[in-house]
Amino acid sequence: MFNIRTDLAVEAREMYKGGHAGEIPGVLVDESQDDNIKIVKVTILDDDGAKTMGKPIGDYITIEAPDLRYRDIELEDKVAQKLADVIKKISNVNVNMKVLVIGLGNWNVTPDALGPKTIENIVVTRHLKELAPLQFGENICAVSAMAPGVLGITGIETAEIVKSVVDKIKPDLVITIDALASRRVERLATTIQVSNTGISPGSGIGNKRSAINMESLGVPVIAIGVPTVVDAATIANDAIEHLESALKNNVESGSPLYNVLKNMNDEDKYALIREVLSPEENLIVTPKEIDLLIKNISSILSRGINLALQPNLTVDEMNQLVH
Amino acid sequence: MFNIRTDLAVEAREMYKGGHAGEIPGVLVDESQDDNIKIVKVTILDDDGAKTMGKPIGDYITIEAPDLRYRDIELEDKVAQKLADVIKKISNVNVNMKVLVIGLGNWNVTPDALGPKTIENIVVTRHLKELAPLQFGENICAVSAMAPGVLGITGIETAEIVKSVVDKIKPDLVITIDALASRRVERLATTIQVSNTGISPGSGIGNKRSAINMESLGVPVIAIGVPTVVDAATIANDAIEHLESALKNNVESGSPLYNVLKNMNDEDKYALIREVLSPEENLIVTPKEIDLLIKNISSILSRGINLALQPNLTVDEMNQLVH
Amino acid sequence: MFNIRTDLAVEAREMYKGGHAGEIPGVLVDESQDDNIKIVKVTILDDDGAKTMGKPIGDYITIEAPDLRYRDIELEDKVAQKLADVIKKISNVNVNMKVLVIGLGNWNVTPDALGPKTIENIVVTRHLKELAPLQFGENICAVSAMAPGVLGITGIETAEIVKSVVDKIKPDLVITIDALASRRVERLATTIQVSNTGISPGSGIGNKRSAINMESLGVPVIAIGVPTVVDAATIANDAIEHLESALKNNVESGSPLYNVLKNMNDEDKYALIREVLSPEENLIVTPKEIDLLIKNISSILSRGINLALQPNLTVDEMNQLVH
Amino acid sequence: MFNIRTDLAVEAREMYKGGHAGEIPGVLVDESQDDNIKIVKVTILDDDGAKTMGKPIGDYITIEAPDLRYRDIELEDKVAQKLADVIKKISNVNVNMKVLVIGLGNWNVTPDALGPKTIENIVVTRHLKELAPLQFGENICAVSAMAPGVLGITGIETAEIVKSVVDKIKPDLVITIDALASRRVERLATTIQVSNTGISPGSGIGNKRSAINMESLGVPVIAIGVPTVVDAATIANDAIEHLESALKNNVESGSPLYNVLKNMNDEDKYALIREVLSPEENLIVTPKEIDLLIKNISSILSRGINLALQPNLTVDEMNQLVH
Repeated sequence: MFNIRTDLAVEAREMYKGGHAGEIPGVLVDESQDDNIKIVKVTILDDDGAKTMGKPIGDYITIEAPDLRYRDIELEDKVAQKLADVIKKISNVNVNMKVLVIGLGNWNVTPDALGPKTIENIVVTRHLKELAPLQFGENICAVSAMAPGVLGITGIETAEIVKSVVDKIKPDLVITIDALASRRVERLATTIQVSNTGISPGSGIGNKRSAINMESLGVPVIAIGVPTVVDAATIANDAIEHLESALKNNVESGSPLYNVLKNMNDEDKYALIREVLSPEENLIVTPKEIDLLIKNISSILSRGINLALQPNLTVDEMNQLVH
Repeated sequence: MFNIRTDLAVEAREMYKGGHAGEIPGVLVDESQDDNIKIVKVTILDDDGAKTMGKPIGDYITIEAPDLRYRDIELEDKVAQKLADVIKKISNVNVNMKVLVIGLGNWNVTPDALGPKTIENIVVTRHLKELAPLQFGENICAVSAMAPGVLGITGIETAEIVKSVVDKIKPDLVITIDALASRRVERLATTIQVSNTGISPGSGIGNKRSAINMESLGVPVIAIGVPTVVDAATIANDAIEHLESALKNNVESGSPLYNVLKNMNDEDKYALIREVLSPEENLIVTPKEIDLLIKNISSILSRGINLALQPNLTVDEMNQLVH
Repeated sequence: MFNIRTDLAVEAREMYKGGHAGEIPGVLVDESQDDNIKIVKVTILDDDGAKTMGKPIGDYITIEAPDLRYRDIELEDKVAQKLADVIKKISNVNVNMKVLVIGLGNWNVTPDALGPKTIENIVVTRHLKELAPLQFGENICAVSAMAPGVLGITGIETAEIVKSVVDKIKPDLVITIDALASRRVERLATTIQVSNTGISPGSGIGNKRSAINMESLGVPVIAIGVPTVVDAATIANDAIEHLESALKNNVESGSPLYNVLKNMNDEDKYALIREVLSPEENLIVTPKEIDLLIKNISSILSRGINLALQPNLTVDEMNQLVH
Repeated sequence: MFNIRTDLAVEAREMYKGGHAGEIPGVLVDESQDDNIKIVKVTILDDDGAKTMGKPIGDYITIEAPDLRYRDIELEDKVAQKLADVIKKISNVNVNMKVLVIGLGNWNVTPDALGPKTIENIVVTRHLKELAPLQFGENICAVSAMAPGVLGITGIETAEIVKSVVDKIKPDLVITIDALASRRVERLATTIQVSNTGISPGSGIGNKRSAINMESLGVPVIAIGVPTVVDAATIANDAIEHLESALKNNVESGSPLYNVLKNMNDEDKYALIREVLSPEENLIVTPKEIDLLIKNISSILSRGINLALQPNLTVDEMNQLVH
């Protein structure tokens, strides 16, 4: 069956809700709006919820700011601050913890480069605390950062590299940053998902990720993701569904046409979509200006993370520590 | 009406042929196949042909090598050589001419950066012939090259910049390189179109280009283009057409369903597509590895152009002259 | 004779002053200090001054902020504002003028890429005023921008390209940005020179520039430059001079040793330096972190220029207009 | 005392030989010339040799090809082949080994980016052998590759990251690539050193490296390095020494001047050099076109390594496997 691709819990829920009344069993949802920023917290409570949603038990907080598509420094600052708040809320991070920030994805593939690009502006301090403990003392969080690359570039599973470094430097918390696939173009580079479940196998837009989570690492993992692409198959699927729905509205229930449409099953649709997109696999849909959008949103992510991890540093001090 | 977007003459013809018997009036087509390279020459003979095709009178030669999607040095060399042959055939270029090569497009937008990337490896000699005429003498073609950027970056129409430089340095021939939009994903980075009509207003994937042609510059213009994106709207449209066609095949002609489908006009389709893609404009579909594909095909283009313009230089000599 | 290389008027003056009492005839100097920013205005009044200084008659204002080597957002903002003030003072620019900003230098050579990098963040508005005169009306300065490349890349003299575009779009003012050579390492990326004389032949760190000035373009030219390299020959020369001076201080005037040293002429020194640096020409000295320094100082330059040209735009509005 | 900085064994030997007759005790030297490529093998036999040379016991093979400064495809191919030969000779690598290639250095600092740039074109196969053992079978060497970054970027000692990954994936051989400092400008980007001693603490041009060798990793380590910078202090020192020597030749032995010069000790010289270069530390001397040189030499390195590790793959097959 054709599977609409999404890495966002809010969209997995929307898709379910589309065909059902009431909330998903085993799932709690809490929404709030602050001016032009919407916060949606989806909590998967139990195995039922996890199964329906196709995602592990845990919290998924989404920060949605559609106006990020227009440059607006004030909004960008606000979203960065909101991200910091969400990270602090979901992780109980504090300056006494050692934190490892991991930028997942392939730096050679523009929409997959979000993680590595974000890492570039993380305030890295672990070595400074070791080299100059008096100057970088107790009020500084010991942060390290790396972009491990992807399997096709290194020949090593990303999860293997992360696991080996975690075992070596023993952080108290791991934060991952990853580019995601969404099913709605309006979410591209305007929505941030923060979850305490880590990375599940198969998510992310690049080479399918292996699990990077509490279970695999033995350390809590906060996963931060931003959708940067929509699968081309999703666009084709949406077009077909819109046509179906338009046709159905124009024919009487019970008529022969209605029955044809009703009986067109997922396999038929999948075959159609494959035909449209053949012979390419891995076709993605992005806004033309994706290079610029990645640059902006990665800057917001790094600011948010820095604010969460280093409450005792001024912006100037952070800038001096960024390379 | 929704307009399927293509910059390729072979596709404009295919789309017309799809609904009609026989060749397009005023259009000649000649095809040949050399192993895994197909050459299609579309000649638009008169105003009738130009109107139907939506393109100016002239020759459009397409080099199609689907296997370019797999790295194959031998095939790449062969395509570069074929491109050189086509350029020589379509332009009567010779080493006594002064040639200006223009890389169109926006270097900050990966799929639009084809032109600027190609320029990087053009063998530039105009200054050498002036500075050292004895060493770089009569058997060297005087080549200059530039990437003028796009309107949004410079505030100046690309055509204005090109025109002003052409008026100043007075080349005998202008060659442009541009990223195109195709309607078939299998043509992305595997098809090269060479035409002697120059650039028409509105073509190219970036900011719509103004005319850069014999009429505007007073100099012959060879336009080389490679499709690097498909409009997302094209994918949505194709999905809808496939569904229509599938449904039509399942219903009897004259039945009520058939009539509904028959009567679904272009405007209905356009409205559907807009709904699927809203609110983004400028959504593009590309293979995920587009960064790499652009790198490879731009290298083939520069080699082909260098071979066409500098028949008296060895590959080593060319390499020493490339920066 | 070996010629210490500097593009800074303040250094040309220092070098003269080193061997002479009093100010240079035909040259006025005015210094002021504002906290950690020093402003030096060198005015070359007449041909005598021009000949001694090796630079054309005109004003050369230098902004020196040695602390720029440490990231300090407040200082960076202050220097950007100071640059805006200096530009406005030296050029009588106003929002009714059409301004063309030119980023000189080779984007492939890190320390020469200052001009092109600065251009990336210039607020470009010329096309907006033409396309949407009501929205981008009388209070917006019509700014265009380009990085014409260097002779080795384009085969065309930079001055030719600039001249042809200026003739076409007829700006009221041209502003150039260029990487310079200094003779003092402490000035690298910490000193900005603004002059109303344009670019003289032979200056800049890249391929020697041709003249880009009022005389060649028919339009006033403000040249903004920042030293990014010291010639390796300068370092070698300084080492030798320090040794000479140390030796001279240790021997009595009139002694044989003193005479030997006194008689070691410039040619001897030049031969020594050539021997040290052979066989490379074009050796440059830079701080190891030059990539980062170029990024920071180019950001300050673009902010200062934007502030000078667009007094009626907010920072947010500028950001939305930058690509 | 001022220490002339070199990471090359051949230069450490030259510096010693400058002041002494005969070969260094505990050191063997073997030179051969093949057209325009010179191979020098320096073997440090015992602790005496190690102490004098300031380098660990082992083999250091240097490939010197001064003509690499001119683009010459044939020479580049020859040097790549020679590098493959040297690697095979010094390491007894074979296709049944698992090899990890490490690109040391900071990708944001042009002359330090040699290692990471080389990694980009290494044929990576470890995952393919695991995923498709039948297709990528016994005749393919299992190669993985990574660029771990530098301490200032990650907050983690490079050696720690390498050690943790080596412990995890257990390669049979580690190959490191690193940018070096030379004391001769003519060696920049034209000399390749291959040694079986691994990386000693404090070498490399970037942040001083920690040891990456047999002792620290428990696996043989082949270190490949190319000089990309000369310390500015070396240039200043050379200038002073040339002057000294010139002066000494002009004065009689025993004269007062001769004695002054003779008594000018290393500390005096060091003070002079510090004065010339103050206040910058970390000043480097490079050719202006260093960006281009790094690109070329890193391509030669990756080709040489690929040839050594994958004798059973054709060039086309390698290209298809490179990302």
